[in-house]
Amino acid sequence: MENFSLFASVADDLAAVEEKLKAYTCSSLEIMNRASLQLIEAGGKRLRPAFTLLTAKMYKEDLRDVIPLAAALEMIHMATLVHDDVIDNSLTRRGQATVKNIWGNRFSIYLGNHMFARSLSIIAGYNRGDLLEVLADASMKICEGEIIQMFGWYNLNLGMKNYLQRIQRKTAVLLSVSCALGAMLCDISEGQIVLHKKFGYYLGMAYQVIDDILDFVADEKILGKPSGSDIRQGVITLPAIYALRRGENKEELACWLSSPEKCRERVNDIIGAVLDSGGIDYAYGVARAFCERAMRQLDKMPPGAPKEEFMKITEFVINRNF
Amino acid sequence: MENFSLFASVADDLAAVEEKLKAYTCSSLEIMNRASLQLIEAGGKRLRPAFTLLTAKMYKEDLRDVIPLAAALEMIHMATLVHDDVIDNSLTRRGQATVKNIWGNRFSIYLGNHMFARSLSIIAGYNRGDLLEVLADASMKICEGEIIQMFGWYNLNLGMKNYLQRIQRKTAVLLSVSCALGAMLCDISEGQIVLHKKFGYYLGMAYQVIDDILDFVADEKILGKPSGSDIRQGVITLPAIYALRRGENKEELACWLSSPEKCRERVNDIIGAVLDSGGIDYAYGVARAFCERAMRQLDKMPPGAPKEEFMKITEFVINRNF
Repeated sequence: MENFSLFASVADDLAAVEEKLKAYTCSSLEIMNRASLQLIEAGGKRLRPAFTLLTAKMYKEDLRDVIPLAAALEMIHMATLVHDDVIDNSLTRRGQATVKNIWGNRFSIYLGNHMFARSLSIIAGYNRGDLLEVLADASMKICEGEIIQMFGWYNLNLGMKNYLQRIQRKTAVLLSVSCALGAMLCDISEGQIVLHKKFGYYLGMAYQVIDDILDFVADEKILGKPSGSDIRQGVITLPAIYALRRGENKEELACWLSSPEKCRERVNDIIGAVLDSGGIDYAYGVARAFCERAMRQLDKMPPGAPKEEFMKITEFVINRNF
Repeated sequence: MENFSLFASVADDLAAVEEKLKAYTCSSLEIMNRASLQLIEAGGKRLRPAFTLLTAKMYKEDLRDVIPLAAALEMIHMATLVHDDVIDNSLTRRGQATVKNIWGNRFSIYLGNHMFARSLSIIAGYNRGDLLEVLADASMKICEGEIIQMFGWYNLNLGMKNYLQRIQRKTAVLLSVSCALGAMLCDISEGQIVLHKKFGYYLGMAYQVIDDILDFVADEKILGKPSGSDIRQGVITLPAIYALRRGENKEELACWLSSPEKCRERVNDIIGAVLDSGGIDYAYGVARAFCERAMRQLDKMPPGAPKEEFMKITEFVINRNF
């Protein structure tokens, strides 16, 4: 958990979130508790709660009222992962067997719904419609992003705009919301809240572009999944979009990428063609531009340890992935 | 839609709910709107919104503030049906092709999640944590009910208690919540709200017992699905539980019901054995007892058209199903 060092100023609060997550997994159904506990113990980067806590920490020392919200955000994230594993038929995640693998699809769908409902009951405790509104809106956008992605499989005519729309809803929205909700629990102006929302958004966009780059260049050990898995599923990300426009072998690449069989069989050729095209450098440029925009939001935030950590995180995102 | 006559005193409000449902289906994704609209137009009994409206109508004339909540409840119900069709691999519902059938599993899971999130954004508008708490709690119980049911397949040792737990979470909880939420939007005491909650609960229990009876005795046209479908899926309901305890051929029945193959192949023999055992009469007795308890709650409610309609609905439930 090396990244925890990036969240040093909220380390105690993150530990409290971890405890809360465990405490929330007590339903009257033993099997449900076991599955939830396994999900929690499988770990994860806890990016969303960390972002919520770091944001709030800019304005107040005592984060006790932020802990449940941060835990609820992580539960929503975990719930979407459980559903994703059903949808993508994934048998392992972070090297561990998925809930779907152990307990099957039916149980996984109900567990995901249950975790989502549990997080709502936590949100209800705040008695604030504005928090729920932000979360509900984000959840809708995330679903829409997945559906946009579905209809983009093996479709080469979807350019940059569609790609940005997809990653926005897939990653940036929830990171943006994580920051916004942390800010909404502090006594600050609407304008200041917007800064945090934008910061999370731009950083989330950069994060996902880098994630998509790593799917081409990193090895399995770093990714925790086979590299080229986007290609294998027909998901066309930024480096490939660039290669389809500018690559030397763009006709051949287009032929491969439009066929589910070729996407599986010729995955190495496809990766090679994308690397040759300069698509990776191009995508890095896009990620860097998003990081710079994130930095510009940070400039306007109050000084202190949380701000410095957010700066380090932003640098970390662009230099290597979590 | 013959049952709409049972909801005469809120007919206009139900029409307004229908309009609201359609109005809520406007996302930026055309395909999502089309699927949602098909779900709405496929109809349904609109029991949940009707119960919310009828309850509120006991205390006030103008239900404009209740309409969005009633629509949100129906959307939550529709969302669970979309997920259920994925889980149960159902190709038709009420004689129409399911969303799963037309657009596939992946889309259906996201659509269900999207509808659930949409209903939350409606609830957020009320800015009342207590409403969200009740709903979140109900959603958790519903998931738990489904999981309890899963682990009960082909399991003959689960008696009456497990059955009641299952149907409570499957049906009674959401009807109970529908009444409770309607009451919570009126200026009445906590004790009075509990009356409505209990009424919905008991009526929901009776409703599901009758539904389970009909799966043995009604023909396909009334059910909108093949009769004996519970048996085929290994779901052991009250008439079968009785037959396993008291039936003349209980050993043979037990042998059939514990085998997935026999449940499919010998469905007619199983139905015959349950009918012979007197399990249907026994289950009717249980349903009647629940209806009587529902009636006792009604006795304590203020007189007027909504109360009379709730009485008729209760009689209707016990005499025939919707």
